[in-house]
Amino acid sequence: MSGKRVAVLGATGLVGREMLLTLEQRNFAVSELVPLASARSAGKTVRFKGQDVTVREVNENAFKDVDIALFSAGGKPSRQWAPIAARSGAVVIDNSSAWRMDPEVPLVVPEINGEDVKWNKGIIANPNCSTIQAVVALYPLHKAAGLEYINISTYQSVAGTGIVAVDELAQGAKEVLDEKEPAPGVYPHRIAFNLLPHIGAFDDQGVSEEEWKMVNESRKIMHLPDLKVSGITVRVPVFRGHGESVVAQFKREITPDEAREILRNAPGVIVVDDPKNAKYPMPIDAAGKDEVLVGRIRKDTGLDRALAMWVVGDNLRKGAALNAVQIAELL
Amino acid sequence: MSGKRVAVLGATGLVGREMLLTLEQRNFAVSELVPLASARSAGKTVRFKGQDVTVREVNENAFKDVDIALFSAGGKPSRQWAPIAARSGAVVIDNSSAWRMDPEVPLVVPEINGEDVKWNKGIIANPNCSTIQAVVALYPLHKAAGLEYINISTYQSVAGTGIVAVDELAQGAKEVLDEKEPAPGVYPHRIAFNLLPHIGAFDDQGVSEEEWKMVNESRKIMHLPDLKVSGITVRVPVFRGHGESVVAQFKREITPDEAREILRNAPGVIVVDDPKNAKYPMPIDAAGKDEVLVGRIRKDTGLDRALAMWVVGDNLRKGAALNAVQIAELL
Repeated sequence: MSGKRVAVLGATGLVGREMLLTLEQRNFAVSELVPLASARSAGKTVRFKGQDVTVREVNENAFKDVDIALFSAGGKPSRQWAPIAARSGAVVIDNSSAWRMDPEVPLVVPEINGEDVKWNKGIIANPNCSTIQAVVALYPLHKAAGLEYINISTYQSVAGTGIVAVDELAQGAKEVLDEKEPAPGVYPHRIAFNLLPHIGAFDDQGVSEEEWKMVNESRKIMHLPDLKVSGITVRVPVFRGHGESVVAQFKREITPDEAREILRNAPGVIVVDDPKNAKYPMPIDAAGKDEVLVGRIRKDTGLDRALAMWVVGDNLRKGAALNAVQIAELL
Repeated sequence: MSGKRVAVLGATGLVGREMLLTLEQRNFAVSELVPLASARSAGKTVRFKGQDVTVREVNENAFKDVDIALFSAGGKPSRQWAPIAARSGAVVIDNSSAWRMDPEVPLVVPEINGEDVKWNKGIIANPNCSTIQAVVALYPLHKAAGLEYINISTYQSVAGTGIVAVDELAQGAKEVLDEKEPAPGVYPHRIAFNLLPHIGAFDDQGVSEEEWKMVNESRKIMHLPDLKVSGITVRVPVFRGHGESVVAQFKREITPDEAREILRNAPGVIVVDDPKNAKYPMPIDAAGKDEVLVGRIRKDTGLDRALAMWVVGDNLRKGAALNAVQIAELL
């Protein structure tokens, strides 16, 4: 039997399910699928290639003979199980933030720094959703004109938080429309018809974890340790797909036409840019798509040698599952 | 009978109603209220100080003996009727964009450039909602440290579009929750659980009217003709209250603590800034409030001598009706 033995840890979560779907859709050569989860979810089944496969509990022996282990179970399980899986001989592709800034661990977006998988020591990190879609759009422009500074404001959907947040938005919206006040749940305040400038914990300077990911992961993926990055990350009442307002300043002048031409030929990007005919990227169009949508490309009104643009990606696909499977394909 | 004869053109709209409420709440000395509207709405009644007042059709004679005319009827009626009202001896305070950039017309935020009302020639312009809340937060910091550059990404609620958009969001959200696809209405695409980087018409460079308002009105109000302004304006599925991600670069270093101290003492501002305890500005807290809420104040991660912050204001109150009534109070 050819193909790889592929384990998926966190197989019952939103990203885990999307990983199974992506493996299937991309015809990844899977000789055996090993869905894994915590004791709580073990025994459930997941659907893969028309079959129900029973989810096993993750333990010390779960990674025996596994070639590739896709992890999407959060930081704590990842810190616990990734070294064990790697010692068992698997290559772990981890979707949590646990290993991303470890200098021994490559942080990879295949379109940008695919060659970094070569120096992996058993763990490869999958970047944060909001970072991936930004760098997929920015890196081709960097190659042409040299990035100096970026400012990103995110408009992030609840799917990034998980299934419980998707339910909370739907339930909360229903309650608000019925003139009831929703109780807070996974978020500290209601998300329905509201905005929360709060993704991850805050440090003493008042910067959130998600904001630091944007800064540090962008630098690591693009090999630009001195890139200047401003940003805020905001949760918005959208189910799936993140929006990003991006201003990028370059070493040399680059026109919107030149940028559109570069991005039309860039891997993983679709240019949607005809605002006069109301054509621009929107979350409802990005959901389920592999590509990052880029539009509203214009000369920035404030800075010299700068472009402004609007970038939308499916945070579960390219922002998580697809990028992880693309890394697996490189191996 | 003391007090002023006050006409309100567009009295049945969202902002018009908020103007009546604001006149009442601030005990503005109104000797007679003259609610005006197009033929379509004439004959309706509006509520003012416990009375029903009949809306009259606007015409050449409607402004006779009117002292102050608050306009909130859109650009076209404003271009038509403001000169007529001014010739009748009224001072027009206009909420549309028709006169804002006219060099003969002051554009006023009372906390910032109240003295500009003195050189009015019968028309005073009320700035755009998203501009007002930004400059109320930025101007006190400018006075302390000298603004050089601002980058603003907006998260704008549907109330700015009018009653029909509020209904469209509610109806659209209901349909999406019922797994139906809402038909587009006042917006070119559905707004429920979606993001539209589209407010106003686009120019040939791909910049929207709302984005140019942010650039040009900020400069005019703060008397900073050379201020560099980057920005995007985005409609989000929120009923009322706009959010803004702001990065501001100054001539001299200013610390977050210093900025908080300045803003705590600034007129029209409430500092809400304790992110570790999940306290930051949100639209659900700003709705109905006169003040602009400012929080997430932090050293910007990208630029030198720069602060980042998150600003939320009620676009119908300070963003429109309240600012107009405050201008009337200056007269």
